[in-house]
This record gives sequence, C-alpha cells and structure tokens, in this order.
Amino acid sequence: MSNIYGKNIKVSIFGQSHSPAIGVTVDGLPAGFRIDFDELRTFLQRRMPGQESHTTSRKEADEPEFLSGLVDGVTCGAPLTAVIRNTDTRSSDYDQLRDVPRPAHADYTAYIKHGEARDFRGGGAFSGRLTAPLCVAGGIILQLLETKGIYIAAHILQIGDVRDRGFDPVSAGDKDFLVLSNAGFPVLIADAGERMLTAVSKSRKSGDSLGGIVECAAVGVPAGIGEPMFGGMENRLAAALFGIPAVKGIEFGNGFAAAGLWGSENNDDFIMNGEAVKTRTNKHGGILGGITSGMPILFRVAFKPTPSISMEQASISLSRRENVKLTVTGRHDPCIVPRGVPCVEAAAAIAIYDALLDPRGHV
Amino acid sequence: MSNIYGKNIKVSIFGQSHSPAIGVTVDGLPAGFRIDFDELRTFLQRRMPGQESHTTSRKEADEPEFLSGLVDGVTCGAPLTAVIRNTDTRSSDYDQLRDVPRPAHADYTAYIKHGEARDFRGGGAFSGRLTAPLCVAGGIILQLLETKGIYIAAHILQIGDVRDRGFDPVSAGDKDFLVLSNAGFPVLIADAGERMLTAVSKSRKSGDSLGGIVECAAVGVPAGIGEPMFGGMENRLAAALFGIPAVKGIEFGNGFAAAGLWGSENNDDFIMNGEAVKTRTNKHGGILGGITSGMPILFRVAFKPTPSISMEQASISLSRRENVKLTVTGRHDPCIVPRGVPCVEAAAAIAIYDALLDPRGHV
Amino acid sequence: MSNIYGKNIKVSIFGQSHSPAIGVTVDGLPAGFRIDFDELRTFLQRRMPGQESHTTSRKEADEPEFLSGLVDGVTCGAPLTAVIRNTDTRSSDYDQLRDVPRPAHADYTAYIKHGEARDFRGGGAFSGRLTAPLCVAGGIILQLLETKGIYIAAHILQIGDVRDRGFDPVSAGDKDFLVLSNAGFPVLIADAGERMLTAVSKSRKSGDSLGGIVECAAVGVPAGIGEPMFGGMENRLAAALFGIPAVKGIEFGNGFAAAGLWGSENNDDFIMNGEAVKTRTNKHGGILGGITSGMPILFRVAFKPTPSISMEQASISLSRRENVKLTVTGRHDPCIVPRGVPCVEAAAAIAIYDALLDPRGHV
Amino acid sequence: MSNIYGKNIKVSIFGQSHSPAIGVTVDGLPAGFRIDFDELRTFLQRRMPGQESHTTSRKEADEPEFLSGLVDGVTCGAPLTAVIRNTDTRSSDYDQLRDVPRPAHADYTAYIKHGEARDFRGGGAFSGRLTAPLCVAGGIILQLLETKGIYIAAHILQIGDVRDRGFDPVSAGDKDFLVLSNAGFPVLIADAGERMLTAVSKSRKSGDSLGGIVECAAVGVPAGIGEPMFGGMENRLAAALFGIPAVKGIEFGNGFAAAGLWGSENNDDFIMNGEAVKTRTNKHGGILGGITSGMPILFRVAFKPTPSISMEQASISLSRRENVKLTVTGRHDPCIVPRGVPCVEAAAAIAIYDALLDPRGHV
Repeated sequence: MSNIYGKNIKVSIFGQSHSPAIGVTVDGLPAGFRIDFDELRTFLQRRMPGQESHTTSRKEADEPEFLSGLVDGVTCGAPLTAVIRNTDTRSSDYDQLRDVPRPAHADYTAYIKHGEARDFRGGGAFSGRLTAPLCVAGGIILQLLETKGIYIAAHILQIGDVRDRGFDPVSAGDKDFLVLSNAGFPVLIADAGERMLTAVSKSRKSGDSLGGIVECAAVGVPAGIGEPMFGGMENRLAAALFGIPAVKGIEFGNGFAAAGLWGSENNDDFIMNGEAVKTRTNKHGGILGGITSGMPILFRVAFKPTPSISMEQASISLSRRENVKLTVTGRHDPCIVPRGVPCVEAAAAIAIYDALLDPRGHV
Repeated sequence: MSNIYGKNIKVSIFGQSHSPAIGVTVDGLPAGFRIDFDELRTFLQRRMPGQESHTTSRKEADEPEFLSGLVDGVTCGAPLTAVIRNTDTRSSDYDQLRDVPRPAHADYTAYIKHGEARDFRGGGAFSGRLTAPLCVAGGIILQLLETKGIYIAAHILQIGDVRDRGFDPVSAGDKDFLVLSNAGFPVLIADAGERMLTAVSKSRKSGDSLGGIVECAAVGVPAGIGEPMFGGMENRLAAALFGIPAVKGIEFGNGFAAAGLWGSENNDDFIMNGEAVKTRTNKHGGILGGITSGMPILFRVAFKPTPSISMEQASISLSRRENVKLTVTGRHDPCIVPRGVPCVEAAAAIAIYDALLDPRGHV
Repeated sequence: MSNIYGKNIKVSIFGQSHSPAIGVTVDGLPAGFRIDFDELRTFLQRRMPGQESHTTSRKEADEPEFLSGLVDGVTCGAPLTAVIRNTDTRSSDYDQLRDVPRPAHADYTAYIKHGEARDFRGGGAFSGRLTAPLCVAGGIILQLLETKGIYIAAHILQIGDVRDRGFDPVSAGDKDFLVLSNAGFPVLIADAGERMLTAVSKSRKSGDSLGGIVECAAVGVPAGIGEPMFGGMENRLAAALFGIPAVKGIEFGNGFAAAGLWGSENNDDFIMNGEAVKTRTNKHGGILGGITSGMPILFRVAFKPTPSISMEQASISLSRRENVKLTVTGRHDPCIVPRGVPCVEAAAAIAIYDALLDPRGHV
Repeated sequence: MSNIYGKNIKVSIFGQSHSPAIGVTVDGLPAGFRIDFDELRTFLQRRMPGQESHTTSRKEADEPEFLSGLVDGVTCGAPLTAVIRNTDTRSSDYDQLRDVPRPAHADYTAYIKHGEARDFRGGGAFSGRLTAPLCVAGGIILQLLETKGIYIAAHILQIGDVRDRGFDPVSAGDKDFLVLSNAGFPVLIADAGERMLTAVSKSRKSGDSLGGIVECAAVGVPAGIGEPMFGGMENRLAAALFGIPAVKGIEFGNGFAAAGLWGSENNDDFIMNGEAVKTRTNKHGGILGGITSGMPILFRVAFKPTPSISMEQASISLSRRENVKLTVTGRHDPCIVPRGVPCVEAAAAIAIYDALLDPRGHV
C-alpha cells in the first residue's frame, strides 16, 4: 500500500505493465481549472520512447482517457481519474521471469513481497510504464502551477561520463528555461546532448545501458512553503522522486559537494533586491530549514543504468534454488534518463503543489 | 504541521531551543518491551557536544524524563512521551536574530512562515537541539530492532576533504560494525579520524565550519520490507533523514556514482548462498523496487557545513529592509557531523521499524 | 480530497453520476486472493434498484471492469482498480439543477464548495451511485474476511414506522444470519418486510419518500482489534459509514438507549464459556475502549428519507438570488434503505479489515 | 497507534491514569495567537469532578504546564505541548484489576491488546482522565474559532429519564447559547437540571450510575466546510467524538428520528434571508453531503452509564480462567455526562477547526 502520494492532494497510481490498463486518480484538484490537453499531450510525448533518436516517434503517445473529475475539460472538484490502456503487451516475452529474477530489477523483491501471485509480466507494478500516469498527474499540476507563476524544468546533467553544464542557481528561470524550451534534447549545451546521444547509441549497440543525473529547478515558488522537520520540502520532494523507478539519490543545492566545503564557502548572504529579500548565491537550493526561501528550488536526481541489458548475467532459479544464467530478451531502453526528465518534473510539481496547499502558518 | 513521522508508528517531536522543554511522543510501540536505559544513555551521549575532543564531556547528557508509556521501565502499549528540560538557555545571546537572519540558517524562512511570532531564540523549533528527542525515540527503536536481529550503524565517511573508507557493502555487519563499536571516534580507519579531528580543530580556530558525509548500514533486515513506488524504503528513509537539520542529500547503494556506470557494472548478480538468495555485490544498497533484498541497506547522507561561523557575513534587517553586516556570537559547533552519526542511526531505525510493521503483502 | 478511506488499506472512490465512469482503487489487498466473481456479482445485485419489488430486476447489474491488481482473477499485490461505465445518463433531466438546488441534497453545498464548475448532473460526485464502487471494494473484502471466519450481515430494522426485530446481540451469527441468507428481503421477520414494502409502495404512489434504520452485525472478529481513543473501532466504523449518502446517525450496542439506563442495567458481566472469555449479554456492541471484545460487533445506522420527492418544494435560484418553487422530475427511489443494506455491510467490512491489519499491540 | 487526530492539525494525546503525567501536543496551530489562559482555566474547570454538586470544587483544576509552542503566551508555530502531572494516584486501589476486568470497562480488551504489560492502574490509557488534555487542546481551539465568529456550545439533553429541551435548530446561537453561558448547570431548562441532579444524587446513593445524551451546536461555521464522502463533517466529527470514553452513539440533525419520517417532513426548504441562503428549518443539522450548509451544525452524542458501580458484579479471573465476583471500590463518578459536556465541545472544536483548514475547493 504505497501508490498514494500527498497530504493535501492525493495522487494514486495503479496498474501493471500487462494489466488491462494503468492509470491515476488525483483527489484534491480545485474545481474550475481548464486543462490544456494539447499541452498535456506534448508533455506526455516527452516521456515516450524514441525521443533520444531525434526523430519523430512513429508510436502514438499513450492517450489517457479521463473517466472522472472533469466536465467539458474543466475540473469539477471530484477526483480526476485517467486511464491508459495497455495494448502492446507481449507477455510471452517474460515467461522466463516467472522463475529467474533479473539482476537489479524488482523481480526478486516483488516475489518475496507478494509471493507466487505477484504479476511478474514486464515488471508488473514495478514497471517504468507506471511513470506514464505519474506524468498525467504531474502534467496537469504543472499547468496549475504555471497559473501561479511557478515554472519547473529539468535537464540531463549527465549521462555516462558526458556532462551538461548545471543550471544557473540564481537565475535558472530567466535564460536556462528558455534554452530548454527550444531544445530538441533536454540539455543546456547542445553539444553535450550530441555526445550523450552518441554514448546512448553506443550503449545500445553493445547491449549495455547507461545511468545519468537529472537536474531540476522550480522558479517562482514563494518563500515560506514547506514545513519544519519531516514536513520539509526536501523530505517531500525526496518522498515523491524516489517513487520513480531507477532513482537512487537526490541532493539539494550544493548537496554532496557541500560536504567538502567550509561554511564560509557554503553560506548564502542575504541581500535586498529592491524590496525583495534574496540570497546572493543559491547554494542552499532554495530551501532552508525545510522551507522555501523564495530562491529557485534546485536539486539533482541520480538514475542508475537501466537494469535490462542484453548480456548474459548470473541469477538464480526461484523454484530450483540454484544458480543459473540469464539473458534478458525483448525491447530494452539503453538509457532511460531522457525519458526520466519529464518524470522528475512531474514528481516535483506534485510535491510542490501539495506543499503550496498547506495551511498558512500564522494568524 | 510536520513534526510527525511514520505510518505504523508515529514519532512526534516537539519543543524549541529555548522553550521549557523539548520532547518526543512515540505512538505505536508494542507493549512488553523493557528499555535498557543505560544503553539508551550511552546512545544519547554520542550526540552530546564535546565528543570530538576525545575527552569525557564534562556536561551531563540531557536526561530524558519519561512521562507516559511505561510501567516500571517496560512499554505498556500507550504512547511513550519523554521530555528533556532546557536549562542552559541564554536567550540574550540571540537578541540580534530577531531582526537579522543568519545566512544558511532557517531564521529567514521561519520568519516568512510563522511571522513575527516565530520563536527566533536559538533557532527555535529549527534548532539542532531537536535531534535529542529524535535520538530518544531512535535509541529505543534501535533496541527493539536488535531483538529482531537488525543492527544499524553509521560512521563518518568524510569531513571536509578527509575521507574514511566506506563500509564493505556485502559484509558490513560482520567486521565493520565491530570496528565501530570499539572506536572512540566513529570511523573505520582510525587515522582518518585523527585527520578529521585535526581539520575540525583547525576549523574551530579559524571561526569557520566544515560539512561531511555520514554513511549508514542496516544489516539483518529481512527481504520483502518496504513497498512499491511512494512507500519504498528509499522514500521512507529519505523522508526521515531530511528531518535532520543540515542534511542536503541522500544516496543509496552506488547512488550518484551509478550515473557514470554501465548497467553491466552496476547490476548485482543473484547467487545462492546455501539456502539463501543473495547478491554477489551490493550496488543496489539492499533495496530494489523500494523493497529490501535481504542485503545490507546502505546509504550516505550529506551534511552541509554548520551555518554558524564567527566571520562577519552579509545579511539584511527585516525591519529596516536594508543590507547589514552580521557577526554571529555565542557557542558554535565547528562541525556537527560527528554528532550527526547517532542522529542518522536514529532516523534510519525509525524508518525501518515503521516499514517492518507494514502488513504482510500476501495471503 | 476525501474519497479515500483507510490506514492499512486505502479504498479510493472516484466518479460522478454522469462522468464516463465511476470506480474504485483498493491499495493494500494481499496478493494471492482469488476473488469469487459470481459471489461478488450477487452482492452487487443487492444494491441495484428494483430489489424491493420482489421481482427479478430486468436491469443488468453494473458490471465492474477490473483494470489492475489481478492476474487471472487472483490479486497480485498491486492496487486493484475496477470501473463501472455510466451508460444510462440523461443529463437533460438535471438541467434545472444548475440553478436551483434540491432541498436536503448536496446540490447547494457542492456549489459553495466547488463553485460554478461543480458537476451538478445527477448529484455529481455526491450521487448515491458512488456506493456501487464502495460495494465492489466491500464485496471483495467481505470475501477476504470470510476466509478468516469473519461474517458480516445487515438487515432493515425500520422503514418509516414499521420495525423488524433486532439481532440477537449474543448469537446473531448463529441463527439470524441464516434467516437473512434465505430471505428475499433483508429482514428477520418476513411479515415486517411485507409491511415495509407496502409502506414503500405507498410512498412511491404519494410521491414522497421514507427513511429507515439498518442494523449490522459482524461475528467472528477476534478480541483485541481496534485501538484506543481516535483509532477505536467505533471511530473507524463511523468514519466509513458516514461515507454513505443519507446516513445521519450511528450507534453501537445499546447506543442512545443506554442514555436512559442504569449502569447496573447496561454493564455486561464477563463469563467463562469453556476456555473462552465472553460477556453474558452484549450491550456494549462488541467494543470496549475502542477495542473488540470478541463478542459480535453490533451497530445501527440511520438513513434519512430520500431527499428526492415529487412534491413541489421551496428553494432558491442561485443566479437570481430569489425564492423559487422546485419540482424534481425524473426517476426517484422512494426509499433507499433496502439498497443501503449491502452498502452498510461493505463499509463495515472495509473498516474492520483495515483494523485487522494493524500491527499487533505487544511483543 | 491511535492517539492522534486530524489532517491539517494533529492533536496527539498521551499518558495513563497513573503515569507521571498526561498531556497533549497540538501540531499545526498558527503562529501569533495569544491564548487567554483565564478563559482556558475556566473551560478546564468545567470538566473537573464535583461540578454537579453546585458547590465550588475544593480541588484545584489540573493545571497544564506548557512545555513548547509558546513565546510569552503567544503561539509561535511550533507544536504546542502541555502536560498535567498525575499527583493524586493511589495505585493500590486498583490491585485487583490486574486479574479481574471490570464489566463494561476497557480492562479486558486492553489486556487482549497489550497483554500482561498493559497499564491496568486506573484504566491506564483508557481512563476518562485522558479527556483533560483533550480539553486543553479543544479549549485553545475554541478560542481560535471564536476569533473567526464560530461558537460551539453543548448542553445535557438527557440524564437517565430526565430530559432538557433541545436547541432551537435554526437559532441556537442567538438565545440558547446565552442561556447556557449563564447557567450553573449546562441545561436550557433550569428545572430539568435540578431533576437531573436529583437523579444523579440518587444514583450515587444507590451505588449505581446513569447515562445521558449531550447535544452540541456550532454556529457561525461558514457554508462549504468539509468534503464529500469519507472527508465529510459527519465522518470527522464522529471520528473525534468517539474518542471520548463512554460515547456509544452520534446523530446529526434529525438523526435516528429521521428514520420514521417522510421525505416531505425531513427536507429543509432553501430560502433567501436578505442576501444569504438559509434553510427554513434545520433537520439536516447543518451538513449536506458532508459539507456545511451555513446553518448551525447540530448533533447529539450518547454516553453510556459510567461502568464503575459499587454493586457486586460478575467477572472472570484472567489468571485462573474462572468466574468470580467483583466489587469495584474507590471513588466513582455516578454520572460523567456533566463532565462530558466540555469534552464534546472540545472534540467538536478540534474537528471543525481541522476542516476549516482544508484547501479551498475551487480556483
């Protein structure tokens, strides 16, 4: 029981890779919001496979069907439910998975958790496919946030050993976001993107896979959002982001690099900027004491390499309790990091919107 | 409203740096558990100031008073509440903080959140002092976990630019834990500890501060704990760990390093170990798909340098809306990383115990 | 944000009377449970309209489609989602409701809550139709409970001024449940049922409606389930039962009648019954201090008369802010109490199952 | 794990009858609210024993000590914790309770839940004494609500067979509340109060006890508060009210009486009252579809007779598994209904305030 996120809104995701459908219910959306379905479609398109090839995907975007929560495309205050049918499911691809768990996948832990009855086909409820309904929810909430002047964008900071430059921590929203909105591939330096694609292509050819880092910024979030201790923005963002399969780390502002710095290097001076209080630098990533400072929220998320690789690997037979060799067949994505970018934006949007709905902290 | 953690147990922390007391209520402890108060005192002693000087602290440990939940030192099933009096509070030290927020502290965000009425004295509810009740709760739960064969230990992996070696990801519990239990300073390589203390000492003299990284391992956690998606062990551990002030990042297993690896380097083969299923390596940090694999849970937490430094810094006057200079006076801890070690263990214990109480996932 | 019930399982209901579909997601069902779909269909049939006429309904039961959570009819541990299409929706029937709220319906409060954008068609998200997915969830959980020896049954205690006899508080499960399972109409005294049907028929003819009381018993619930104070079985059952539209009261055991009794009349003696501890009588309704005693859980739920009546009523125009007359047209159910019986069983099953999953209270 | 109530605020109650202290933490109070401690003391005085004798109690009110959440008597946004020491605890009175559970008390169910380790002294965590911290939290929140024009008052509607008149459902706040604020004993008809006191006095002399009904009204609650289905005001009030020991029923508006009415009798016409929408009558108790209508919220709560009576009763020996006779000694309250009145107000205030903090339902 864990597919529900949020305190003020509840985003509830359901479905398995090979069940009739996957979907999401968002309870707590305000009534009266008109969804821009074209914009949503464009957003969902970004997590479709085939983006990294720089060609138009021939496969249509998974089209969500909205079962509830809308009247003529406008939210009505009731829980919004959208479902996406699973049509392209070749279960036979996965027959050997019943007995032999794939390394670094959730096959084995799902078996321990749910026993023989777990849905092993295509990773079941642990499939990366479940990020599609996450993006439906997040895509709508991103639109809601934009009406409040809050913009969220992410880019690929690293794939394998190729790095993009990072966001400008102070002014990411001014120029960097514009660069991204015009980019075919979500990087700030086009050349880095080219080299990333080359690396991914090489990885595909060798039957291997690559991990990476996605960096995300949220600009326009007012100061004072989030709460102390366990209700902090960091806690909440982390609790949402680790819901994306393959995410293994998160850091805010200077993050792990701060460990090697002096306080005098890592502190951000406060300064008056006209009537507004700002910090001169933004090593704190827009969050102090769990509460937003009004500076851009800035964090990075580590994706492990896709566990599915074509090479022979060592595993075990669950039934025979013995070591076996395993070769994973079927379609694999040699690097899910590009498709992870909108997922990070979606999860961040959900966490930030949820925090925005907290009661005001003073009378 | 955010000082409560947990689904199956609720750890609820209260108090401010200068309120009459701080404390914690733990709701959901099983009845019939006899607390070892000596062991608890020893655990709490580890987060007291002065540990890094390798001399016995002259200051007595904060002694918790248990107000409820116990009968003759044994839990009775009712919520357990412990309070620690705040005695050594010199509020005048903090008078200037009413108007001038300290860089990288929560002073400014607390002001925005709670307005003029916030308790600014000593950081109020954002003070690191609130980790004392966290450690009371965590210390008790660590004892509970040990009765189930689960052991948690953390060490300092890095302070400034000095690094300890990491845990052995596969067998941390066998030898590394023993090393730590005999260590005066929580590192695996004594010499690294010496150099860390030298760095801290240098930092104190220069009025500056240092950050660091704490690495934590939990051994003996059975496979199958945690839940998919938002209920994963990573989500839950992160949601607890970011409750510790100064934590700015968390990574599991290979974490951010996995971003630069091939799948073939980052996958862990499954192997039979007698009757048990293990992984040959443990790059996944004991968690796959949010669920424990039975291998050691392994994660690292980044602490930023203590924001309180003696050097003059730039800030603003909240009342006059102008730039000012600020020199923070009073006692400061030049590096809170050593004191953070038991806090990490405490938060990890709470998150793991909470997950252990989840209903079994199959009939 | 309120369509989700439960702590250990989450039952999340969505849909409006005239949205494409209504449905439910149940997160937290154990893997490996084979649903008896025939039994579920029979259960759902009981809340279909037309039951009170004692003739077979010509209308097919709303057939739920299961989108997730199952593999070959067996739960797999992932959230189970079922949807029911809304096919028979004549929205034009409801056009006047846009401006004139029906007395005793949620039309006005929904307007205040969600504004112009609320879905006013057929009561929108407040429609009694939403009890269909509640019954899907409850029907499955009733089956789960039966595997644990827990049986829940309800009957109509009163419609208008006609009363059935109450359950035997001590031995309801032995004979009364058998009577009900063989009854065409859910009463213990067949003659009372006949008179109820006559009253309902009269009510239909006069264009008026009738309220009633449903009494429910759960037998086989072990002692020790539920928790003190806000986690008590009474709190949890009430929190679920008031989710059924038209419910306006709930009482346990002697309930309101206890107000007029002496303690010596209302206390239940404990007695040994072989090796088991029982109470001689069951005025406490199976719950003491919020925790089950092992005796049958016994409660009664008050349903107000269906607000939809054919008579002209006084209301107001929301747009013109003036008093108007309203005549509600379209199909109305002159008494929803018979259809409320399975809803009460469903809600009770969900609350009791959720409490059964609580962690054990002692080591 | 159940001593915590609320979604937007968390009221967390701890302590046992004979633990060093009992208390409450309220997380989520806004910063900047100045508590009127005299008013709070007066409120707490109302639940002290001895009120029904119409003489000033010689026993001082339990004085709460505020450990956190305040600066100079003003809330600061941090969790507020108040504790009340248990001083007058004669544990020896309860020695026989270790083995022989009192009929209609929680002694037996606590034993099953928490085993030998439960705190049996004085009812432990199930003691009515735990309503003192409930009233501390509720008393503060009542003050907060009054600043928003919301007033809550309760009176004794019935003790034994003596009845007070009910609130005027439409205008309770205008005259009835004034009557109560001037009444020594919380009834609307002074003569009914005299007869109740006579009945209680008779009950004390005969060693028996009496139950009763408390009626409560909340006026000034704006329309649109509460949410559909499980988040309704009825669900939330019930979930709070059943937290008071001895409460066995709750009904809203016409409640159980509606079961015997025609729809045409039970519906409330909408009418314009100047610019405001009102209902002519208030049989719905101020709540439609779970959401407030702007009319007074009106509900009644059934209290069972105090289980502690002086007469010999039948029970069992837990250790010897045999039937025994039990005579409960020590101080007993022959009717806790008068003391229940402020508890009902407190619980209602908490539930209503929590609902008021919900996010607004439309953009």
